[in-house]
Amino acid sequence: MVAAVELFSEQGFDATTVAQIAERAGATKSTFFRYFPDKREVLAAGQETLSRLLAEGIAEAAEDAGPLEAVAAGLERVSGVMGTMSREIAPRLKAAMAASAELQERDALKSVGLATAMTAALVARGVAQPVAQVVGELGLLAFKRGFAEWSEADERAPDELAVYMLTALEELRAAAASLG
Amino acid sequence: MVAAVELFSEQGFDATTVAQIAERAGATKSTFFRYFPDKREVLAAGQETLSRLLAEGIAEAAEDAGPLEAVAAGLERVSGVMGTMSREIAPRLKAAMAASAELQERDALKSVGLATAMTAALVARGVAQPVAQVVGELGLLAFKRGFAEWSEADERAPDELAVYMLTALEELRAAAASLG
Repeated sequence: MVAAVELFSEQGFDATTVAQIAERAGATKSTFFRYFPDKREVLAAGQETLSRLLAEGIAEAAEDAGPLEAVAAGLERVSGVMGTMSREIAPRLKAAMAASAELQERDALKSVGLATAMTAALVARGVAQPVAQVVGELGLLAFKRGFAEWSEADERAPDELAVYMLTALEELRAAAASLG
Repeated sequence: MVAAVELFSEQGFDATTVAQIAERAGATKSTFFRYFPDKREVLAAGQETLSRLLAEGIAEAAEDAGPLEAVAAGLERVSGVMGTMSREIAPRLKAAMAASAELQERDALKSVGLATAMTAALVARGVAQPVAQVVGELGLLAFKRGFAEWSEADERAPDELAVYMLTALEELRAAAASLG
């Protein structure tokens, strides 16, 4: 994943091959191709991990937790893993995205997938459909804004990503509640 | 646009060429290529129209309308145009989408664009950022659900699309308000 993002930002998504990613990652080409037949799959694998972590955090939240508290637990779970990634990846990924319409489309699809995963995990907890959908979207907005603000902050420590996401979630909750 | 959706659903997005779309639409190839250099542009043009209609409806809502009322005005504006499209397009587009990952990604990016357009139009009306963002997302959810339910309904009249969207928006508002 790190190797892929490095190459995408250095030479663009279109010009990067799976063979180059495998070489940079120090893997044999045949091993790498078994897992990632296509360079888009490299990014899809990251998305599946994020969706799974969000859903696990929501599923394992306290039984009496409301939908927003459950989503907060999902965001804490995912930020614990994302916060340990190299601080250099975020700006590189951003640069690679800015240069590739295909990566932007993939990111948009990824976003839809994350909101869907959160909504499904909430429905599995017994939350009614329209509430689950709204809270899933608020969770996605908090995820994206928290990550963007964390990665742009001058001084950031890995354990602070959760704080950014939960602060954003609380602000979005207040905004939603003001519509009543 | 109708010709493009027909061809995408008949033979798939990947196998369809801009030349085929031009021929089906009864346009000369050179005229068509001037407007749509790439088959993805055919769909992008539809997206820009939707974003513009939503933004216009929001901008022209009554001065004292709240953010949800302004988004409702945007949805009414866009459904007035979408509701006149052939009733056969919706299921065909759905079938074409189900068969093409590329179309799904484009649709996801389109969705992000529509929410962004609504949020920007609300900010231009003086709505605070977090509220504008939440209401823009609620507007997108209402747009998608209203359209899906309208296109699946057995008996639908063109002028009923707005009713589906506004009903969905009201349900989402109530769900958001319940989070307070």
